[in-house]
Amino acid sequence: MLNQSGQLDSLYQALAEPARRIMVERLTRGPASVSELAKPLDMSLSAVMQHLQVLEASGLVRTEKTGRVRTCRIEPSALRMAEEWLSAQRGMWEKRLDRLGDYLAKTGDDTG
Amino acid sequence: MLNQSGQLDSLYQALAEPARRIMVERLTRGPASVSELAKPLDMSLSAVMQHLQVLEASGLVRTEKTGRVRTCRIEPSALRMAEEWLSAQRGMWEKRLDRLGDYLAKTGDDTG
Repeated sequence: MLNQSGQLDSLYQALAEPARRIMVERLTRGPASVSELAKPLDMSLSAVMQHLQVLEASGLVRTEKTGRVRTCRIEPSALRMAEEWLSAQRGMWEKRLDRLGDYLAKTGDDTG
Repeated sequence: MLNQSGQLDSLYQALAEPARRIMVERLTRGPASVSELAKPLDMSLSAVMQHLQVLEASGLVRTEKTGRVRTCRIEPSALRMAEEWLSAQRGMWEKRLDRLGDYLAKTGDDTG
């Protein structure tokens, strides 16, 4: 199992490619077969499978094969992890702005 | 200027590296010089500069040189853009769960 930093590496790496983001966008609307995922993408099925492997390795997508059909599903906890790191950074930034605002208000009181 | 998909590529690519995330975490707490950014990182200054260039190219960080000191600042709009794509995906996913819940409730009404 990857540690948290390693998992963030592979999550953001997986998302840093337009075709893989299109696949994720499709899967947030519900499960899909590989050929459904491939439909909007202008690439070979083997290229799609390679992107799918990157998504699976990152934990963003799970796949399951029944007979000849591989069904792909989004893994919401992985999406959430990628979002949470970013919202934590925004939180830090906003806290800093608040402190700055407080400081400026206080300075205004002192001098005004 | 990068189009939105190209910018998301380079944002997530920039974030897919632990040292760059540490630099972003530091900068959300306020501006810093390159040597301040380098302090917690176990790497050469030239490696730090390379990571900084990736962050700058992605739009996540702006730098400004005054005399011999380069000051680095976070660019909150870029952080927000990376977060928004992810929260849009979560939104789609949650909407789907709601629809599924409605459907199951309706089916329960019909048969119960």
